[in-house]
Amino acid sequence: MIQNSPPIRALLFDVFGTLVDWRRGIARETQALLSPLDITVDWLAFADAWRAQYQPTMDQVRQGRIPFSKLDQLHRRNLDKVLEDFGLEELAEETRVRLNLAWHRLDAWPDVKAGLERLHPKFRLAPCSNGNISLMVDLAKRNGLVWDAILGAEIARDYKPKPVVYLVSAAAFDCEPAEVMMVAAHSSDLAAAAALGLRTAFIARPNEHGPGKGDSRAGIAVDASATSVLDLAEQLAADDAWKE
Amino acid sequence: MIQNSPPIRALLFDVFGTLVDWRRGIARETQALLSPLDITVDWLAFADAWRAQYQPTMDQVRQGRIPFSKLDQLHRRNLDKVLEDFGLEELAEETRVRLNLAWHRLDAWPDVKAGLERLHPKFRLAPCSNGNISLMVDLAKRNGLVWDAILGAEIARDYKPKPVVYLVSAAAFDCEPAEVMMVAAHSSDLAAAAALGLRTAFIARPNEHGPGKGDSRAGIAVDASATSVLDLAEQLAADDAWKE
Repeated sequence: MIQNSPPIRALLFDVFGTLVDWRRGIARETQALLSPLDITVDWLAFADAWRAQYQPTMDQVRQGRIPFSKLDQLHRRNLDKVLEDFGLEELAEETRVRLNLAWHRLDAWPDVKAGLERLHPKFRLAPCSNGNISLMVDLAKRNGLVWDAILGAEIARDYKPKPVVYLVSAAAFDCEPAEVMMVAAHSSDLAAAAALGLRTAFIARPNEHGPGKGDSRAGIAVDASATSVLDLAEQLAADDAWKE
Repeated sequence: MIQNSPPIRALLFDVFGTLVDWRRGIARETQALLSPLDITVDWLAFADAWRAQYQPTMDQVRQGRIPFSKLDQLHRRNLDKVLEDFGLEELAEETRVRLNLAWHRLDAWPDVKAGLERLHPKFRLAPCSNGNISLMVDLAKRNGLVWDAILGAEIARDYKPKPVVYLVSAAAFDCEPAEVMMVAAHSSDLAAAAALGLRTAFIARPNEHGPGKGDSRAGIAVDASATSVLDLAEQLAADDAWKE
C-alpha cells in the first residue's frame, strides 16, 4: 500500500461519525430527557439540526472571529439556537445543561473497542477530534476505548481542519507527520491531514447520517480503506509495509 | 478527613518520584548504554547530577527567560552539561539521543499499576507532571498504567508549581479545583495545588533519592497521607466523605 515511507508509529482518530454514532445517540438522549416533560419532536431531525450548526460555529473560531472555546461550549450555543427553531425556548436552564452533555453519552460503533484493542500494542493511539478532552474521556469510559493520550482541538486551541490541530497532535507523540496515520470517515478530514504529510485511512460509515446516508468510500486517494476499525487493524497487521 | 467539600471527581498525579523510580532507572539505563563503550562512572551519582539540573532549567521557563520547551528538550540540555561535568564530552550525538530517552524507560514503584486500576472505575485519572506527553505515554505503556488523559505541563505550556499547570489540568476534566485531588510525594507540589483549592494526597516514597533518602511524611497539612497508591485507593474507597 505504502512505499518508501517511515513506519507508522501512531494513529489519530476522528471521533464523531468515525468512532461514535452521534445521530442516534443524540436522538435517544434528547428523547430520554424531553419526553418526560411531555415534549415530542422528531428526535432524529433534532439531532440533525443540532449537528448542522457544528461547522458554522467552529468556523467562527477558525476564522478568529471568536476566541477558542471548548466544543461543549459551542454545542451549548448551538443547542440554544436549535431549541428556539423547534419552539422549545421555554426549556429550563438545568435541562439545557444536562441535554448538552448528551454528546458525552454516545455509543461507539460495534467494531471500535475491539479494533482499538488490537491496534494498541503496536501503535500510539489518540483521538484527534474537535471534541474537548472531557468529552473524549467520557466517551472512552462509556465505551471502554483504550487511548494513550487525548489529543486534538483542545490542546491545539483551534479546530480541524486547521493544520495546527494535526501537527500539534503528531508532535505530542514525538512523531513526524509521515509516521502518523489519520483515521476518519470523512474525506475532508483526511485531505487536510494528507496535505500536511500524514498518512490516511478511510473508515466506511455508510449510516452516519441515517440508513444509507454516509460515505462508503473515500472521495480522495487514501493509504488504506477499511470497513471498520477492526478491518483496519487487520490490514495493518497483515501488511509488512507497516512494520518497522 | 474532608468536610463540606464537593465529591472528588478526578485525581492528578505527580510522576517522577511519586509513581516512578527515576534514580535507579536512570542509573540502570545509563550503565546499559555506556558500559559497552568502556565508560565507567558512579551511575547513581550520574543520575543524581542529571536530576539536580531539573529545577534550575525549568526555572528559566517559569521565569520567561526561555520559551516553553518539552521536558525532553530540557533533559537534553542538562545531559550535555552533566556529561561535561563527568568528563564525557566526547560522547557521540547518537548515544546522547538514546541516553536522553532513558527518562521514557523508568519503572513504576510496585504499587502503582494496581493502585491506578483500583481508582480508575471511580475517578478520572491523569498525570499532572512536568514530563511531556510522549514521555508519559511511554511510561504508561511500559508499566501498564491506565490514564484517562495526559495532562500537565505540555498542555499548559509552563511548569509546575506554576498555577496554570494545575488549573488547566483541572479544567480539562471539567472540574472545579475542589473536585480534584493532587497526589504527590513532594510537599512543594501539594502546597502549590492546595493554594489553588485542590485537595491533596501525600504518598510516602522514603527511598526516592536512595535508601532512606526520601520523604516519609508530608511537610504540610494534607487531606490524605498514604504509603502507596494502593493504600490511597483503599482509603478513598473506605471513606464515605469521598463519595457522591
